[in-house]
Amino acid sequence: MDSKKLKNLFASVKDGSISVEDAVRSIKHLPYEDISFAKVDHHRHLRQGVPEVIFASGKTDEQVLSIARAMHKKSGSFLITKASKKIRNALKIKGAVFYADSGIITVGEEKKKTGNVLVLTAGTSDIPVAEEAAVTASFLGSKVATVYDVGVAGLHRLMDNSAAMREARVIVVVAGMEGALPSVVGGMTDRPIIAVPTSIGYGTSLGGLTALFAMLNSCVPGIAVMNIDNGFGAGCLAHRINTPGDRK
Amino acid sequence: MDSKKLKNLFASVKDGSISVEDAVRSIKHLPYEDISFAKVDHHRHLRQGVPEVIFASGKTDEQVLSIARAMHKKSGSFLITKASKKIRNALKIKGAVFYADSGIITVGEEKKKTGNVLVLTAGTSDIPVAEEAAVTASFLGSKVATVYDVGVAGLHRLMDNSAAMREARVIVVVAGMEGALPSVVGGMTDRPIIAVPTSIGYGTSLGGLTALFAMLNSCVPGIAVMNIDNGFGAGCLAHRINTPGDRK
Amino acid sequence: MDSKKLKNLFASVKDGSISVEDAVRSIKHLPYEDISFAKVDHHRHLRQGVPEVIFASGKTDEQVLSIARAMHKKSGSFLITKASKKIRNALKIKGAVFYADSGIITVGEEKKKTGNVLVLTAGTSDIPVAEEAAVTASFLGSKVATVYDVGVAGLHRLMDNSAAMREARVIVVVAGMEGALPSVVGGMTDRPIIAVPTSIGYGTSLGGLTALFAMLNSCVPGIAVMNIDNGFGAGCLAHRINTPGDRK
Amino acid sequence: MDSKKLKNLFASVKDGSISVEDAVRSIKHLPYEDISFAKVDHHRHLRQGVPEVIFASGKTDEQVLSIARAMHKKSGSFLITKASKKIRNALKIKGAVFYADSGIITVGEEKKKTGNVLVLTAGTSDIPVAEEAAVTASFLGSKVATVYDVGVAGLHRLMDNSAAMREARVIVVVAGMEGALPSVVGGMTDRPIIAVPTSIGYGTSLGGLTALFAMLNSCVPGIAVMNIDNGFGAGCLAHRINTPGDRK
Amino acid sequence: MDSKKLKNLFASVKDGSISVEDAVRSIKHLPYEDISFAKVDHHRHLRQGVPEVIFASGKTDEQVLSIARAMHKKSGSFLITKASKKIRNALKIKGAVFYADSGIITVGEEKKKTGNVLVLTAGTSDIPVAEEAAVTASFLGSKVATVYDVGVAGLHRLMDNSAAMREARVIVVVAGMEGALPSVVGGMTDRPIIAVPTSIGYGTSLGGLTALFAMLNSCVPGIAVMNIDNGFGAGCLAHRINTPGDRK
Amino acid sequence: MDSKKLKNLFASVKDGSISVEDAVRSIKHLPYEDISFAKVDHHRHLRQGVPEVIFASGKTDEQVLSIARAMHKKSGSFLITKASKKIRNALKIKGAVFYADSGIITVGEEKKKTGNVLVLTAGTSDIPVAEEAAVTASFLGSKVATVYDVGVAGLHRLMDNSAAMREARVIVVVAGMEGALPSVVGGMTDRPIIAVPTSIGYGTSLGGLTALFAMLNSCVPGIAVMNIDNGFGAGCLAHRINTPGDRK
Amino acid sequence: MDSKKLKNLFASVKDGSISVEDAVRSIKHLPYEDISFAKVDHHRHLRQGVPEVIFASGKTDEQVLSIARAMHKKSGSFLITKASKKIRNALKIKGAVFYADSGIITVGEEKKKTGNVLVLTAGTSDIPVAEEAAVTASFLGSKVATVYDVGVAGLHRLMDNSAAMREARVIVVVAGMEGALPSVVGGMTDRPIIAVPTSIGYGTSLGGLTALFAMLNSCVPGIAVMNIDNGFGAGCLAHRINTPGDRK
Amino acid sequence: MDSKKLKNLFASVKDGSISVEDAVRSIKHLPYEDISFAKVDHHRHLRQGVPEVIFASGKTDEQVLSIARAMHKKSGSFLITKASKKIRNALKIKGAVFYADSGIITVGEEKKKTGNVLVLTAGTSDIPVAEEAAVTASFLGSKVATVYDVGVAGLHRLMDNSAAMREARVIVVVAGMEGALPSVVGGMTDRPIIAVPTSIGYGTSLGGLTALFAMLNSCVPGIAVMNIDNGFGAGCLAHRINTPGDRK
Repeated sequence: MDSKKLKNLFASVKDGSISVEDAVRSIKHLPYEDISFAKVDHHRHLRQGVPEVIFASGKTDEQVLSIARAMHKKSGSFLITKASKKIRNALKIKGAVFYADSGIITVGEEKKKTGNVLVLTAGTSDIPVAEEAAVTASFLGSKVATVYDVGVAGLHRLMDNSAAMREARVIVVVAGMEGALPSVVGGMTDRPIIAVPTSIGYGTSLGGLTALFAMLNSCVPGIAVMNIDNGFGAGCLAHRINTPGDRK
Repeated sequence: MDSKKLKNLFASVKDGSISVEDAVRSIKHLPYEDISFAKVDHHRHLRQGVPEVIFASGKTDEQVLSIARAMHKKSGSFLITKASKKIRNALKIKGAVFYADSGIITVGEEKKKTGNVLVLTAGTSDIPVAEEAAVTASFLGSKVATVYDVGVAGLHRLMDNSAAMREARVIVVVAGMEGALPSVVGGMTDRPIIAVPTSIGYGTSLGGLTALFAMLNSCVPGIAVMNIDNGFGAGCLAHRINTPGDRK
Repeated sequence: MDSKKLKNLFASVKDGSISVEDAVRSIKHLPYEDISFAKVDHHRHLRQGVPEVIFASGKTDEQVLSIARAMHKKSGSFLITKASKKIRNALKIKGAVFYADSGIITVGEEKKKTGNVLVLTAGTSDIPVAEEAAVTASFLGSKVATVYDVGVAGLHRLMDNSAAMREARVIVVVAGMEGALPSVVGGMTDRPIIAVPTSIGYGTSLGGLTALFAMLNSCVPGIAVMNIDNGFGAGCLAHRINTPGDRK
Repeated sequence: MDSKKLKNLFASVKDGSISVEDAVRSIKHLPYEDISFAKVDHHRHLRQGVPEVIFASGKTDEQVLSIARAMHKKSGSFLITKASKKIRNALKIKGAVFYADSGIITVGEEKKKTGNVLVLTAGTSDIPVAEEAAVTASFLGSKVATVYDVGVAGLHRLMDNSAAMREARVIVVVAGMEGALPSVVGGMTDRPIIAVPTSIGYGTSLGGLTALFAMLNSCVPGIAVMNIDNGFGAGCLAHRINTPGDRK
Repeated sequence: MDSKKLKNLFASVKDGSISVEDAVRSIKHLPYEDISFAKVDHHRHLRQGVPEVIFASGKTDEQVLSIARAMHKKSGSFLITKASKKIRNALKIKGAVFYADSGIITVGEEKKKTGNVLVLTAGTSDIPVAEEAAVTASFLGSKVATVYDVGVAGLHRLMDNSAAMREARVIVVVAGMEGALPSVVGGMTDRPIIAVPTSIGYGTSLGGLTALFAMLNSCVPGIAVMNIDNGFGAGCLAHRINTPGDRK
Repeated sequence: MDSKKLKNLFASVKDGSISVEDAVRSIKHLPYEDISFAKVDHHRHLRQGVPEVIFASGKTDEQVLSIARAMHKKSGSFLITKASKKIRNALKIKGAVFYADSGIITVGEEKKKTGNVLVLTAGTSDIPVAEEAAVTASFLGSKVATVYDVGVAGLHRLMDNSAAMREARVIVVVAGMEGALPSVVGGMTDRPIIAVPTSIGYGTSLGGLTALFAMLNSCVPGIAVMNIDNGFGAGCLAHRINTPGDRK
Repeated sequence: MDSKKLKNLFASVKDGSISVEDAVRSIKHLPYEDISFAKVDHHRHLRQGVPEVIFASGKTDEQVLSIARAMHKKSGSFLITKASKKIRNALKIKGAVFYADSGIITVGEEKKKTGNVLVLTAGTSDIPVAEEAAVTASFLGSKVATVYDVGVAGLHRLMDNSAAMREARVIVVVAGMEGALPSVVGGMTDRPIIAVPTSIGYGTSLGGLTALFAMLNSCVPGIAVMNIDNGFGAGCLAHRINTPGDRK
Repeated sequence: MDSKKLKNLFASVKDGSISVEDAVRSIKHLPYEDISFAKVDHHRHLRQGVPEVIFASGKTDEQVLSIARAMHKKSGSFLITKASKKIRNALKIKGAVFYADSGIITVGEEKKKTGNVLVLTAGTSDIPVAEEAAVTASFLGSKVATVYDVGVAGLHRLMDNSAAMREARVIVVVAGMEGALPSVVGGMTDRPIIAVPTSIGYGTSLGGLTALFAMLNSCVPGIAVMNIDNGFGAGCLAHRINTPGDRK
């Protein structure tokens, strides 16, 4: 039931061609699908918290490109994750930026950055996932700082960066292997912490499950955990937390 | 290096028995253990984000009570989780409140509540975990609202509460079985969502692992996931997110 | 937005106290929760396919009884699963029937039985789950036959009952251990088969996971699989399949 | 014991060269393998519910083609699943249809379509599995409708299609990641639901196990679950449920 | 189709009231269930390899006793596994023997023992499972020797018993924890080895799965593996192997 | 301590240059490594039960060939499993036979075949594993028969071969997917059964774990289970069981 | 072949009743079991590294006591792990010491302590396992120090004890939940570290598997890991490492 | 707080512009990051126990080479693990040694070897992991001996090497499949044992998990276990144990 139909209904009530009772009855059977006119508004609302995104992994280059072109026409601003340099080149969209470590592509103009998101990694191998989180949060409008390779095997490296932790509103901690870094960071700060396990490791790292479970069992209460290698999700959540006052 | 030693060092510098350069050098080698005097300050800072807590499960009543008495003397304000009515009665602390569903006990005076935390559950069996989250966040100083039994099998129940969702700064979603509620809530709001899987279910619910994994794989990006039945952690995280401006 | 409010809106349109445009606008913002007047109808509809049910396991007797009393007042017809004789006796509802093997209690008058549901078990230990399925389907209005203890170790027992299989519209097959019976039954019939794994077994039966996975991997295509020990769900599905023409 | 031997036995009884008692005794020892003459009839019966099918995955192209040629001669009507365009081309059978998304090939003439099967997917990546289900059910003689990309992150998309749900006799719901869609659909309809988990996802999606377990634990009772990515099985089951009156 | 019906059929053929052709046709449709007259013979055959048995675990004492009484009347000779002393006493069957370690009860007269089965255990905690295997094989008619506590931590204990190994026709090796004994025994003999993992251990023994998997991965080829704690099955298999010439 | 040293010791005792007591003492400390002269005999013994074998998978062609050449020189008779046609051709050993389905190569002259091993498969995809078992047992000296594609979806195919089952001394049953065939065969025979799970299947077949666990949980007692795809081990065990009287 | 037989053999050689060649031959066939005279020496050797121990868990009190009495007579010095106060009291052995936290009982006189073993725990709940390790190592003759409750959530607590770490020869680190402490300790020292995961935690702690896997995946190389809750094993290993020069 | 700030503080104390008490108070709040000047010393200490290492697996050749060049400049002495011949050749560092089985590269001059590390393997396929352990320990300064292919299927091979075991200070045991070798070795020696599971095997070897769990559950107490295939870690630990007196 779209606006026009509704208008006709009210007009019919007004001019008496349908009784109030019948109008109530007809609208009572208003099926769910008829409220679809709320879709657009709803979508705009959603987009404040989450960007439009194409998950390129498992799609052919051609599929990615055709979805990207459609999005480019519609909104002009979106992300492609797990993409390749080749996709970037084939995209032929001015201003699209390709981040080589994470394979994320941003399309659309820069937003003004607010708040303060800090992204930490335990090792250098965790950087691709961290970059995905950082680029995503930045793309959504968060100010983002990154400090890489501050794992628990050398705590002084982490302690050198405690100032950055104090300044952050929310901290994303990316770690593979034993996934211990979020616990240590959590013991040093009162900021919300988003822990992202990575699939870095071998044998009993179980493709990241060990880091994931370690993070879920942190002796520091109140650590948010994401799916393995889910830098994009961490960036979205970090932005949601970082900008609580920006939305209605 | 404790206070006394430090005082002697400064006195020696002052009276010239040690040069400034030598003093700097000596303090540069200050071993890690000597910074233990920072403990108290650090702890106070931590407590802004996380309450002192006794996890009663797996401890004897006597153990819980003796730790509680020590905490009562030291800080006067703390939580006991997974406790029993019997512990509450034996506690003999005025103003301690026992919440029967979750078994949480709060000790200490009420804080002024700020912000807005919403706690949802999929079913009535999830209420104990939700109550633990709600009491914890409230105890820490967050304003908390709860809406229970709005699972995905009857979406209208959830939709009836969309106003509460719009008003919240952060939403805690507690669900067992297939753990689908956070995804549906996540599709209707741009607030940060904290998903708490519960061990409600049987067979392939695998003690809550199924709900946990479902939440980690949500098609809505940016959902924070906690350990199974970890209402306390969810309350801590919700408060951290809810009051970003309250701390330094 | 309930009927009364809607009526007032239409009356206002009719008497001109609100313009057609304003009425359209107000109804466009009709929030999701306002369509809650659809709840009752929707529920009635649902109940054609699924009975109201109390899952007693994990609830105190008192909790079960108070929910049962509320349901008894509201609809008069419902099920309690995983209940005890003690609950039955405390229920004090005339005509409530307690089935001792499965612990299911039915409350409410008999419906006319239609169609033909056959429930098979591999062993005698699987009977409690089978009884739950049979009682549920029968309670919903399906004609149900049961044949127990026809496992694959003695195929002649199964073959003796091929006539019953030919007469069924849908066959529920309940089996634990290696869960092979659904495959063998599936090779002998073209009826829809609902396979229910049970937790009967030890060691690598993994609490029913082995039977579950075996059923999901049946070399006979088109077997529906339920959660472990989920006789209630199997009864609901069997009834849904058995009476496709009874609903709109 | 084939027909000829049986005939001789009866002839011997008739002409008195063997007594009735001896005839009974000889036939009592009729071993299982002697009832092999029932094979053909039995097979015809089976084919009413399940098509002949070649599972191409893990076979060489040459193996697939030689089995296909044999089937083509024998019955003229069969399916090849998980096949490639290259196999289709090499097949050289007129009227064979290749479906590119799912890699299913149908061989044989169209049947008259009856009933009403609805196939839904949560995302676009689930379409290959959905197509396999839809083509299979249609090939067997079911009328099939498909609605893709109506996942729980945007419920309005699902609600827009509630009419299609009301018209269906059975609904196949295909979803990966958290596998929440069957629960939501199950809450909106009383039709039998066949849930098919897909391997879409990463990390803790565990190759589809998370979606599978979520579906088995649905809070909506009576959802049939299939093996991961088993669109073919879902199509078979949907047809079995959709056409209960077509068979004896 | 039972004997009487068959007799009538033949009589009708003989007296000409049914033609040979019609008789052949009628018997061609002889449904599977009609061959049920083969049941008894088949069962006797089976019993040569496998005893009648009641698995007491998970049954009430009363259930066990009533099945036992039925079996006692019918065949006089059977086993009860995982039983208690209390059941033995309530059984009131003369000559029933209760084995306290394994909880197995034998009912029925002794058979003449043939062949040579050797049962080894790694530790003393494995004895209950070993006893179940030994009693079962002996009950079926195998000569059985047992050597307990010869685990790999002290190889000399095993080597002291190499003569017993050389004399055996088949060796049952029972072990928990790391399950290494079958590999070591397998390296010292050419006899068929039946490995039985036990649930002895803690932590990563995973209730016996670790021992099971270790046995399945033995570097010695040709070791038969049983389910965890399945002494009864091992006894049956050992007897089947031990007496290949005793059956037809 | 080799023969020569022993000889010297005895000579010294004889000529009195060492006392009996000292000789006993010296031999009492005879370290384990000194009994290495038993190695050869032991090896010959072992070979009666298990062939020399090269597991080609995971080795380079060159590694396989150099080990094969060494074995060829030493014993002239051995197996290579999981090998390729290319290896066969490079082998340049007259009489080496390559089996294409399983990739097994036999080198050495034929032994006289005794006993009777039957190898069954559930489907055609299980044939490579079955062939490995059959070739291995035959190579060791067992008479082997094979019947393929007699899975539980069409029981008549299995029943047609009950004569072959009655004639066998031991039956190897190879099956993937739900692994149900060993249970059904076990219900029809009293022969020792060796069940070999294969990795055939997808999704919840879990690479063969589902078939493995199903076989371990068979409702028919006394089924020997092998590691996934371990046709070679099954062939060794079948031969050990098949020829109990051939060895000392 | 015991001493007496050997003596006779040598005597026969000496007196010429058996030739040197025949003596060599007879001793060449000396079966493995005849070297059993090495058992006692071997055992004494073993005991230098590992104490005699009774694992009380899963045994009846009476079984524990009778084994303990036998050991008391034989060696006078042994351990009982996972025991109860009740067992201690029933033991009636003077000087037996019961440790209440871990349930370990030591019997036998004190050894002189050497070396330096440090036992750390992450939390207070890990103390029982730590005490078992400490008592075991001390019982074997190691000097042991313990520092409890120095988990990663408050690093200053650990740093306060860096002096103890520098003085240790080997460090046992006991931790449950996320198991992060060994990594942090490993980053601060070059001593061998023995990590013991405990079953402390809930939900995804998976009974200690998460801590175990985290420790196996430590980013600090060279950490030794024990089974879950295996304090006894850690004590044995710590002593073996702590006293490398004490044994031959 | 860096050196300059510290210097100013001491100068202020000296000239009386700040009192001793105030100086003590200010330094008490010295944040963690200011102790970063301890980094270098700390690192030097660490390197005594653990070498600098590049884990090449999962890095591009170019990444490995650029890190290697940086390390070469800084310390001149480091390892590359899981590397290729191609990397070795591209390295262009004189004296770099490439070990082909394990793919480890050593750079830097030889250290004097002390102590005695023995590395054993169960099979030839375990050699790459063993070589990694041996090269690592040797590179760090340990004397290393290796004995390969002494698995439990032929115990005499192990016993032949008992002298090597007696001479070792620490024994590394590398084994895949059922992982039984560490238990057998542990029963024959009192040396510390480091067990390294390898991913050698198939099916239920679960990529090495079976060997890992078997080792953790050894019936011999006090065996140190490493992650799957972690030869490098085993080498580090062996060296730490082997040279307890070399460090401070």
